[in-house]
Amino acid sequence: MTDAFVTIDWTGTGTIRLIDQTRLPLEEVYVECATVDEVARAIRTMQVRGAPAIGIAAAMGLAMAARTIQAPTFAAFYAALETHGADLLRTRPTAVNLAWAVRKLLRAAQSLRDLPLAEIPGRLIAEATAMRAEDIRINRAIGAHGQELVPDPARILTHCNAGGLATAGYGTAVGVIRAAAEAGKRVRVWVDETRPLLQGARLTAWELSRAGIPATLITDNMAGYFMHRGEVDFVVVGADRIARNGDTANKIGTYSVAVLARAHGIPFYVAAPTSTLDLSVNGGAEIPIEERGPEEVTEIGGRRLAPSGIRAANPAFDVTPASYIDGIITERGVARTPYDESLPRLAGDA
Amino acid sequence: MTDAFVTIDWTGTGTIRLIDQTRLPLEEVYVECATVDEVARAIRTMQVRGAPAIGIAAAMGLAMAARTIQAPTFAAFYAALETHGADLLRTRPTAVNLAWAVRKLLRAAQSLRDLPLAEIPGRLIAEATAMRAEDIRINRAIGAHGQELVPDPARILTHCNAGGLATAGYGTAVGVIRAAAEAGKRVRVWVDETRPLLQGARLTAWELSRAGIPATLITDNMAGYFMHRGEVDFVVVGADRIARNGDTANKIGTYSVAVLARAHGIPFYVAAPTSTLDLSVNGGAEIPIEERGPEEVTEIGGRRLAPSGIRAANPAFDVTPASYIDGIITERGVARTPYDESLPRLAGDA
Repeated sequence: MTDAFVTIDWTGTGTIRLIDQTRLPLEEVYVECATVDEVARAIRTMQVRGAPAIGIAAAMGLAMAARTIQAPTFAAFYAALETHGADLLRTRPTAVNLAWAVRKLLRAAQSLRDLPLAEIPGRLIAEATAMRAEDIRINRAIGAHGQELVPDPARILTHCNAGGLATAGYGTAVGVIRAAAEAGKRVRVWVDETRPLLQGARLTAWELSRAGIPATLITDNMAGYFMHRGEVDFVVVGADRIARNGDTANKIGTYSVAVLARAHGIPFYVAAPTSTLDLSVNGGAEIPIEERGPEEVTEIGGRRLAPSGIRAANPAFDVTPASYIDGIITERGVARTPYDESLPRLAGDA
Repeated sequence: MTDAFVTIDWTGTGTIRLIDQTRLPLEEVYVECATVDEVARAIRTMQVRGAPAIGIAAAMGLAMAARTIQAPTFAAFYAALETHGADLLRTRPTAVNLAWAVRKLLRAAQSLRDLPLAEIPGRLIAEATAMRAEDIRINRAIGAHGQELVPDPARILTHCNAGGLATAGYGTAVGVIRAAAEAGKRVRVWVDETRPLLQGARLTAWELSRAGIPATLITDNMAGYFMHRGEVDFVVVGADRIARNGDTANKIGTYSVAVLARAHGIPFYVAAPTSTLDLSVNGGAEIPIEERGPEEVTEIGGRRLAPSGIRAANPAFDVTPASYIDGIITERGVARTPYDESLPRLAGDA
């Protein structure tokens, strides 16, 4: 199943080409980033978004930056690279894949310290390119593990966009849905629109349409209604950071979906690569939640909807306690409770 | 506490003046209806909305129509009036106040059958005018009963708009909030924006700003997040129809809020006049749910957000089972479980 779109890739001239996710679905426009600062801006403004995708973007951006660093010694080169890495880390605080990708690139640089300085940027570009290809393979593995859990037929609810657009391609939660469809299962999808930025309505709806998977868009507050009517069989969402105990940060509204799924006896799964695990964090309370500007709530598409002067809250993420999660689907298999044992084992850290 | 706005009233020339709720909060525009067909259109297009308000609009519209009926006999007059009533009933299927108001006006007409025909329209206009004034008194009584249940201080969450705009004035759920503030309680309000038509963001936020009550706008999918953080003390919502067993139809999303409130041990109350009771309906499954056009979900403010060709569902209401409702606040007191005993008693039908 081809996506017929490319979320992020190199151009022939060594710049980075991103599909502009703020313009979808009305326009399919690509942004070209020629500097790491332009990549950082694309992450901050959510032209590229989704935890795995911003990790890949950061790795590619950092590798691109390596080519421009003028330094007499490896130490000076590395210090400059670290500074660019720190700038990237400041763009979005919640997803851990960004930190994982920057750390991985910096470690790769360290391992190359004995090479001639001129050879290192090319090797880092190869490393970032491999991370991009690996992300797609990982998503297909997540899909393969996850689709076994999907009933046939299944009416699947998903929130936000954990799709090909949120990754280098194929998707995590949407990857599970794609894999179930590819396996011949009769799947239909309920797409939560996902206010405030409408990633469900704009991105997941668009991706599923492209993939030919039947989907119905709903407002976030309809999920409980359709669950109560017995019209939801399975829930799968992505993740921005998973703590050692399984608590999972994901797009705002995920927690409410999890509570509703539990109240209706519907399986609730998280799909994410092991790069989303943050074993240094014991529980969800330690995960920083990004608070974005109130205008994302008071306006839609630049159009004011609420009265002037009204306060608005805008936490971009929430944390779903592990107790609401029936399993965490990774490229290495499905982790089950107790997560503080299963997750370190999958991460190779137990 | 004055609202500084009038939801619906007569003009000096016998027409009906409505605040156009589709234009709020950006514009405070009034619509003048000179015929019952114009009133029906205002209800259908939601220029006037909210279960009690559409009941009052229907009663006033029907009384206005009575003046224009040319009939030789009472039977012919009454048949014409019934036809107008049936047209009004078709505008919105879920709220029962509309049927209640039409029935009340028709019963009033029946009771006047021995009067000279020329006198009847004036008497019906007086009846509709009394219903409007009575609605405001009822809301103040709901507020007085309900505010006793509100903690001090209280962070209150409400969904949709059950405010002065949804009634002849003061409001039901918002009336409870107003009454708590008037009683000196320190209240702050979480306003669910209430997709798809954003009655919370547009109307409740506007009303509370006018009333000087501190309010914070949130997207519907944030309610669970703030409940989980312990930042919600009390939930109060309105109702469009309440079955004999206490099952309550209200704006889509109410059910999800109720399930979330229960999961967090937060009191969940419904505030509504006894005209919202439909004792002829035994349970929520018998309440018709209005399905509105998909464009309300795929567009916001006339602007397309979702990809073309995507299906969208748009149930305008959901039913909250009585087991999730801690009490139903009416003008005659607070009904508690078992509702099939307490509600008929309050309605004077037990």
